[in-house]
Amino acid sequence: MAFELIPNGSVTTPSGFQACGIQAGLKRSGALDMALIYSPRPCTSAGAFTSNLFAAAPVMVDRRIIASGTPVHAVIINSGNANACTGEQGLKDAEAVAARTATRLQLAPEQVLVSSTGRIGVPMPMDIILNGVDKAVDALSADGGPDAARAIMTTDTVCKHIAAQLDIDGVTVRLGGMTKGAGMICPRLRMEPPQATMLCYLTTDAVIDADALRCCLDFCLDRSYNRITVDGDTSTNDTVILLANGAAGNAPIRKGSPQCQAIAEALCGICSHLAKEMVKDGEGVSRFVEVKVTGAATDQDARICAESVAKSPLCKTAWFGADPNWGRILCAAGYSGIAFDPANVSLDMMGIPVVRNGLDAGVMSEEELAKKVAVPEVFIHLDLGAGQGSFTEWTCDFTYDYVKINADYHT
Amino acid sequence: MAFELIPNGSVTTPSGFQACGIQAGLKRSGALDMALIYSPRPCTSAGAFTSNLFAAAPVMVDRRIIASGTPVHAVIINSGNANACTGEQGLKDAEAVAARTATRLQLAPEQVLVSSTGRIGVPMPMDIILNGVDKAVDALSADGGPDAARAIMTTDTVCKHIAAQLDIDGVTVRLGGMTKGAGMICPRLRMEPPQATMLCYLTTDAVIDADALRCCLDFCLDRSYNRITVDGDTSTNDTVILLANGAAGNAPIRKGSPQCQAIAEALCGICSHLAKEMVKDGEGVSRFVEVKVTGAATDQDARICAESVAKSPLCKTAWFGADPNWGRILCAAGYSGIAFDPANVSLDMMGIPVVRNGLDAGVMSEEELAKKVAVPEVFIHLDLGAGQGSFTEWTCDFTYDYVKINADYHT
Repeated sequence: MAFELIPNGSVTTPSGFQACGIQAGLKRSGALDMALIYSPRPCTSAGAFTSNLFAAAPVMVDRRIIASGTPVHAVIINSGNANACTGEQGLKDAEAVAARTATRLQLAPEQVLVSSTGRIGVPMPMDIILNGVDKAVDALSADGGPDAARAIMTTDTVCKHIAAQLDIDGVTVRLGGMTKGAGMICPRLRMEPPQATMLCYLTTDAVIDADALRCCLDFCLDRSYNRITVDGDTSTNDTVILLANGAAGNAPIRKGSPQCQAIAEALCGICSHLAKEMVKDGEGVSRFVEVKVTGAATDQDARICAESVAKSPLCKTAWFGADPNWGRILCAAGYSGIAFDPANVSLDMMGIPVVRNGLDAGVMSEEELAKKVAVPEVFIHLDLGAGQGSFTEWTCDFTYDYVKINADYHT
Repeated sequence: MAFELIPNGSVTTPSGFQACGIQAGLKRSGALDMALIYSPRPCTSAGAFTSNLFAAAPVMVDRRIIASGTPVHAVIINSGNANACTGEQGLKDAEAVAARTATRLQLAPEQVLVSSTGRIGVPMPMDIILNGVDKAVDALSADGGPDAARAIMTTDTVCKHIAAQLDIDGVTVRLGGMTKGAGMICPRLRMEPPQATMLCYLTTDAVIDADALRCCLDFCLDRSYNRITVDGDTSTNDTVILLANGAAGNAPIRKGSPQCQAIAEALCGICSHLAKEMVKDGEGVSRFVEVKVTGAATDQDARICAESVAKSPLCKTAWFGADPNWGRILCAAGYSGIAFDPANVSLDMMGIPVVRNGLDAGVMSEEELAKKVAVPEVFIHLDLGAGQGSFTEWTCDFTYDYVKINADYHT
């Protein structure tokens, strides 16, 4: 039951899913700005949403629908406006978008999920969006997944989608996914209560019950989205939605079964790919950096330490400059708040020993090491020598372009 | 017993203190790079040091001396090398610097404190530094405070020193201080156990016992250095040292007395001035930002919330762009981890109501508000409506120059 990735796949790779990306007119650039995913067959759903207290209106709507267990048929998504910090009106607007989509697809409003991404605190331009809904319904197609992935982009420069397939007891089951970043990226998603502006939509044609689907999503989150950061800002709109429409016709998959684990691993394959893609396409990013922490007292300590290094502006700017500057990495570990003995710390960069027993390992000159880290993907391994806890965080450098993108955002 | 600030004052403003700044040759630029503060009279001392686990060698030496209660006569300081993550050799080097200073001043080694700031993990160039000690001892003078303040600068662009005076029962008592930033600034100093790379040296000619002196410093820390951040990175070398030589001849000041409180407040006047100056001169800073949080459930909650906003890269880049973008401020409060009801949140910028009940207050257009925040000092007030807790953090914007300074640091 090993899975195989389909590099050009998308949310429409699984059977029975349609999608589209259209131009509603929300972006001054004239780029695609609304997407719709639709399955004529009812879908079992699972979702995980932002842990930010200022959860956006569409997040509130989706939490309610997913918690209710109502079969879902569609997800309507706009970029260009986050519908966050918009109060009662925002909630009404989100519901109105779902209702219009439902009407046009002959569904009930609670069978439609809704997502938004863009600027916080700005009223939704409902005329444009409702017209966009109509246009989107008309544009649905069985190969519309890549267009949908393009339509949800904000400051992203690359369109991110993929699919996977695996054999479940002789039946081919497919999974598809799409996601967007590229700033306010530090998703810390929660399923309980069902709660990035990363957005991620996952589809599968597996026959799988809701409990098993939730287990699969839960298995993925801490191995993908919940281990990435671009800027350390956890959005009000982070959303991961997983829909299963059963079109593959496999024998129903139950929680705890080997088949369920196989689906979870395939889903993890998709999500970790998309999560890394999101970091590589993060705002202004020039280098992807993997920060692996081992030897912590606990996994939670390892996570705290990895996040401290991954978010440190001094580490991130040094990486931009291809400056090995291992002192900044140790410094960020040292103020992370966890306990360890500095004298037991080891650090490797690109597999090269850099620090041993808390001191310069002296294996390579700084100039030589600088050449080794002047690469698109930097690998850092910090061992704290304090236990068996481990965690890997995926992050990026901090560049002039990040500042440019975010200081000029409103223009 | 109200105090009066002396704007051009320095660590040599209090009677009986001498200081100097000299060029030892540690900086390629040829700038002043070593400083010495000296009092022929023995000083009562108090100190607070970094909470980073990778505390630098000089920090370890100073902690031990200050904890021992030994009267102190001098502080020798080098910029250009942090002597951090340097192990046993680093400790020997720090002790050798203190010993050379002691010998030249006819003191015992444990009467000399030592500080370093600069790159982490690089061995100390002891020839240069020991020659520098000799030069520094020869250069001591009763008006050397400003030169000393210049010599401790690293990426600072402005030399930061000030003094204050107050009347204690008819006797004029003076306090002086100097500090440096300008990156790896998020000091979280601890006195217990006596533990920036902010460095701060404070002198007073008051007659005051060690307990009272510690109380005065403790009173100041949370009201000054422990409420600032430039980049959120807590250094391995952060140090605040306060020396009292008793030259003013006032009646001895005891812990808990009104005189002790008056000294504490004067010290606070100096420290909060120097702390703000440090933020304003932070690496690449174009705007100083005060983030005041009120209405939190507890003071600790208010601190967590204020720090979350003050450290948010999205808020900091928006401030650089003079973009009011209040959604990013609310977002950072919302993911800070504390509890409050978004519907009760108010936000003011420059005294203008921006958010009421979690929603756009609609008092001013975004264009008008953008003009109000395009100033050197931005004031933000967030009220969470959840209780009586409050905290004020001093921070800054995040600019192209910050990236430039820190990506090119090693060149």
